[in-house]
Amino acid sequence: MAKIRHLRWGLLSTARINRALIEPLRASKNSILSAVASRSLDKAVEFAKEWEIPRYHSSYEALLADPEIEVIYNSLPNSMHAEWSIKAMQSGKHVLCEKPLTTSIKELDEVISVARNTGMVITEAFMYRHHRQTLLVKQMVDQGDIGNLQLIRGSFCYTNTRSNDVRFDPALGGGCLWDVGCYPISFARYITGKEPLEVYGHQVTGPTGVDLLYAGQLVFPGGVISQFECSFITPFKALMEITGDKGRIIISEPYKPGIKTKLIIERDGQTQTISIRGAKLYHGEVEDLENAILHGKPPQISHEDSRANIAAIEALHKSVSLLKPISLPVI
Amino acid sequence: MAKIRHLRWGLLSTARINRALIEPLRASKNSILSAVASRSLDKAVEFAKEWEIPRYHSSYEALLADPEIEVIYNSLPNSMHAEWSIKAMQSGKHVLCEKPLTTSIKELDEVISVARNTGMVITEAFMYRHHRQTLLVKQMVDQGDIGNLQLIRGSFCYTNTRSNDVRFDPALGGGCLWDVGCYPISFARYITGKEPLEVYGHQVTGPTGVDLLYAGQLVFPGGVISQFECSFITPFKALMEITGDKGRIIISEPYKPGIKTKLIIERDGQTQTISIRGAKLYHGEVEDLENAILHGKPPQISHEDSRANIAAIEALHKSVSLLKPISLPVI
Repeated sequence: MAKIRHLRWGLLSTARINRALIEPLRASKNSILSAVASRSLDKAVEFAKEWEIPRYHSSYEALLADPEIEVIYNSLPNSMHAEWSIKAMQSGKHVLCEKPLTTSIKELDEVISVARNTGMVITEAFMYRHHRQTLLVKQMVDQGDIGNLQLIRGSFCYTNTRSNDVRFDPALGGGCLWDVGCYPISFARYITGKEPLEVYGHQVTGPTGVDLLYAGQLVFPGGVISQFECSFITPFKALMEITGDKGRIIISEPYKPGIKTKLIIERDGQTQTISIRGAKLYHGEVEDLENAILHGKPPQISHEDSRANIAAIEALHKSVSLLKPISLPVI
Repeated sequence: MAKIRHLRWGLLSTARINRALIEPLRASKNSILSAVASRSLDKAVEFAKEWEIPRYHSSYEALLADPEIEVIYNSLPNSMHAEWSIKAMQSGKHVLCEKPLTTSIKELDEVISVARNTGMVITEAFMYRHHRQTLLVKQMVDQGDIGNLQLIRGSFCYTNTRSNDVRFDPALGGGCLWDVGCYPISFARYITGKEPLEVYGHQVTGPTGVDLLYAGQLVFPGGVISQFECSFITPFKALMEITGDKGRIIISEPYKPGIKTKLIIERDGQTQTISIRGAKLYHGEVEDLENAILHGKPPQISHEDSRANIAAIEALHKSVSLLKPISLPVI
């Protein structure tokens, strides 16, 4: 029996989202959570103690210099994703980076270039993309269960009451488009299997300058139209609704499906509920990266995929600045 | 006791929508259904016989010349609304005209001018506007039940399989925006109490040249954004969802509510279902016009209201022709 190789992970930051990764790393046969880093020694010690992580570092550089670590989970604020993912890869570490991989196409292209030059694996942590529900919806659409695709509606709204949240800081890549709008956009792109030709939207801008609410429209090749809304200042709503000329799929837990979830398909005047059992939400992205590193399997979220999502969001921001629809290059 | 004055109504055409008016006219103490007109004598006779209408006319002109008739229900194809509403008023008849009152602002202004000159009452048959549910939703929003208004979502889609339907004929004012898109647009305008500053949308154009599917976005003063979709080629969906920073109202029978209907309000993490008893759907528009003619009460749908809805739809069509968002004059 071949010896199992363990990937030793280091958490770059003590962000809340880390907690989502700890359980799947513990559950995995191929991964070990080895270290955590914070710019504050106290925070690093406290986090390591609370979560029983063997090693801690009081700087991000120290974590990247730790020879035992092979994989970095980059959960820094959005604007720091590119810089530290690049540094991690240049230090010989693979990277699972929180979405968005970067906050601009320019940075993304640098990240891709460094990945190519170093041979390191880097992929974006869009956990919903690994869940069985997402794969099933894609399969249903592709096999024609709802006929010809026409409309995709997405919503991801919540009320963010944490006033010091990095999400309100424009310098840190804040705003609801980057934080939650990225999901319905990613979902629509995944389902169409195509990239938007044009995007346009409107936002409510907060006192710090970030988009607190954004409602947008994406036009895909073949005339498929996607409308979405995302918000920090609206009561919670998460929904994807995918409509074809023969039916409609309604997904009430599209972005954070549980191990048991349900979706609805309407067709021929009938409404059917489909129960789905999936893996725990964040397990998929850990397994996906393990397979990429250990077995050379292409990650579920390719660089091109991340790039197109970021391009769409960048263009949606641009449409608000320029007060007009933005055309995107046909990819 | 004062003698009740009966308004004698004539149906201009034998369109299917007439059937909706027959029952409320019969039920009303103030109205009598007296005549029907068709350009085909056979059709007029057949319709009069089937619905036990005392008089029939084999031309629209003959109906307008009938001295007994005081009110015309104009259910002709959209493109003929202006011409025959004007002729009716010039013949001394009041008019209940199916929506849209006209298919252009230019025509609408002529209609308004003739109404002023003749002193006749003309109003648009938007039946949902008279239903208690609609009035209740407006009241809930106005009294702050969902906080500050942010987003309004509307959908009115169905599959139109009647290949000879006038709705597919561009020369007759066909297309899904005029037919069903007018509802979510009207609803959003009614709820905001304001007129859109900008509209933009995309459509799927059918072989005859009409919009078979339209998805659009309206921006209202104060940053309220409305997104809607309407379609002839999509499985049935009717929904309005009105979101504020404190809650959300979901209306599953927004345009054709029954005498018993329900709406949902989400607020403070709670979901409450509100049961509503309203009058039969088409009774409201008959009563509204009776009150306008007999008691001088302003109709629920003013000329300005009709004008602004038509202006929005005209601009949405224009946005597709010009491939850009269209600004509307601040009213």
